[in-house]
Amino acid sequence: MKVVIAPDSFKESLTALEVANAIELGFKRVFPDAEYIKVPMADGGEGTVQALVDATNGKIVCTPVKGPLHAPVDSFYGILGDGETAVIEMAAASGLHQINEDEKDAKLTCSFGTGQLIIDALDKGVSKFIIGLGGSATNDAGAGMLTALGANLTDKNSKAIPSGGANLHLLHHIDLANLHPKFISSTFLVACDVSNPLCGDNGASAVFGPQKGASTQDIALLDANLLHFGQKLETLCQKSIINFPGSGAAGGMGASLLAICNAKLQSGVELVTNTLALTDKVEGADLVITGEGRIDSQTVFGKTPIGVADVAKQHNCPVIVIAGSVRDDYDVVFEHGIDAVFPILSEPGSLAEALTKGATNIERTAYNIAKTINITT
Amino acid sequence: MKVVIAPDSFKESLTALEVANAIELGFKRVFPDAEYIKVPMADGGEGTVQALVDATNGKIVCTPVKGPLHAPVDSFYGILGDGETAVIEMAAASGLHQINEDEKDAKLTCSFGTGQLIIDALDKGVSKFIIGLGGSATNDAGAGMLTALGANLTDKNSKAIPSGGANLHLLHHIDLANLHPKFISSTFLVACDVSNPLCGDNGASAVFGPQKGASTQDIALLDANLLHFGQKLETLCQKSIINFPGSGAAGGMGASLLAICNAKLQSGVELVTNTLALTDKVEGADLVITGEGRIDSQTVFGKTPIGVADVAKQHNCPVIVIAGSVRDDYDVVFEHGIDAVFPILSEPGSLAEALTKGATNIERTAYNIAKTINITT
Repeated sequence: MKVVIAPDSFKESLTALEVANAIELGFKRVFPDAEYIKVPMADGGEGTVQALVDATNGKIVCTPVKGPLHAPVDSFYGILGDGETAVIEMAAASGLHQINEDEKDAKLTCSFGTGQLIIDALDKGVSKFIIGLGGSATNDAGAGMLTALGANLTDKNSKAIPSGGANLHLLHHIDLANLHPKFISSTFLVACDVSNPLCGDNGASAVFGPQKGASTQDIALLDANLLHFGQKLETLCQKSIINFPGSGAAGGMGASLLAICNAKLQSGVELVTNTLALTDKVEGADLVITGEGRIDSQTVFGKTPIGVADVAKQHNCPVIVIAGSVRDDYDVVFEHGIDAVFPILSEPGSLAEALTKGATNIERTAYNIAKTINITT
Repeated sequence: MKVVIAPDSFKESLTALEVANAIELGFKRVFPDAEYIKVPMADGGEGTVQALVDATNGKIVCTPVKGPLHAPVDSFYGILGDGETAVIEMAAASGLHQINEDEKDAKLTCSFGTGQLIIDALDKGVSKFIIGLGGSATNDAGAGMLTALGANLTDKNSKAIPSGGANLHLLHHIDLANLHPKFISSTFLVACDVSNPLCGDNGASAVFGPQKGASTQDIALLDANLLHFGQKLETLCQKSIINFPGSGAAGGMGASLLAICNAKLQSGVELVTNTLALTDKVEGADLVITGEGRIDSQTVFGKTPIGVADVAKQHNCPVIVIAGSVRDDYDVVFEHGIDAVFPILSEPGSLAEALTKGATNIERTAYNIAKTINITT
């Protein structure tokens, strides 16, 4: 029997690799001689760096950068086992979780730190980038990132414009002469599960601005500024960017990556399954086990279990999900290639208690699933 | 496919029949054409009357009786579908749960109400009794029950002795002349999972007295009184009772039932599986599903899932348990014929929340177990 174990992390409890290890432990008690292929997974969001590093025997690089409001923050990114691919979660440098609730201000936040991570990786010889855009605090269309990488964004008086989305209307000229030399020649795969354009009612400011602290008035200003910046980018690069699906991701970061880096935007989980060659690993498998901290009706929108099931179903392989919790509306996942879902909780109790028992509960659940399969095989 | 569904009740949440119905619902979504045999189960404790009544299309009889401290309580028993067998939970008349914590007093409590239930059933034509002894508040060796049924328990002056275990030393003579005429000729099966003798260090007073409010001093008195009463019973019936395993059950109620009724003491779950002819129902089954509110290391001591597994294993039939909660020490059940155990909880939360979601969670769990079986068959 060949079993592929490809779970996401269980947030605040276990990394994807730890989840995979616990599942393997449970299964091995029943099927000690089966072949187990562990593929720590992610969907482009939080945990993507750790999962891809664990899956490829890569390494985590820790480095301080400027946070969303310029205060220094401890940040990190991953270099995959191939030594030439970096994985960056934008939120690790420019994330909402790095500022306090009362500091949120989409007018001021800046993606400079993300650019610093890219520089750090470029200087280590990396030439391929995987960038996850989720959880950003910014609405500056990646202007901060470009500045960090050496772009000069200047006003009418050839003076550098201040950072933050609120100041983009001052932009008169984008000068790329001093851009980091390896930046343009690198390839960029961007994990992006939204198709929002840069501007307008479905644009970055209108849709994602409020959660970053933007008022209705702010949104109007920010949206106009993104349009202005987008037009400058389009002129500079001679490409249509503003209405490109995903250009509005991460406060418009999508637009800069599309324009300057010729980035390829892709569903996060698809990017991860491709990077890890999951389809090759699933070939010939009898069972795929995946997992996620929570399974609900939102799971079908690009979460790991569905991405894994997509691959498994190409091989007619059954898929069982082990989940930290399961909402009552979960069963739409059965229309997307999932065969069975098991929550891991063993007793009533708080989330905090459940988080500490993750590994034990996952192993027990996997063990009993294996025993059930063993009944009938 | 033939599936036998034989769960216990989930206490404070669902009756055994409700649990069985929820399991059936879940399975039927996957295997609509399978044959389902539902056998609501119990282990001789709380829920035994309901389960046996539900399993045999019997009825519940409600009647007020004297409670453990003489105050009237609403009580009940069951008459099975055969019309000639009554099922009584002693605790429904003489139970610890019927008195307040500060009222507990093993010296005063009295089993009179249990005798009243027996009379009510005898008067309805019942000639067979199944009596569950769990949860009693009494330590009177069944003296109250015998009194209710017409026995005269008198002191040296031929005066009736007061009720309660503390007064049994006054007993001089047991006169059965006025005993209910049908009482002696009836058969008594007693669900009893303890093997304690009537007296001594392992006797009723020493082992169960403290939970019924007996102090160390009380225990010495009560133990001496049970010995005195037991000797009277032995003389009267010319049988060895005092050291008979189980004579100390339910505050010595076991002794009276053994002496006067020639009762057969049996493990509760075995009594229930026999009464419901579970082995006939399991014959030819492909799968047995059982369940209980909680699974832990204590489950192997006479709880329903183990009793069901005992029967299933005689037919080499796999057994899956669906449980309200699962303690970390649960896995000893795998040494007792259980193949897999699945808790039903879907999200962190309180016991109170879990209790309200019992049916939904059981159905979901059963559905996903069926889907897992369906993968491999």
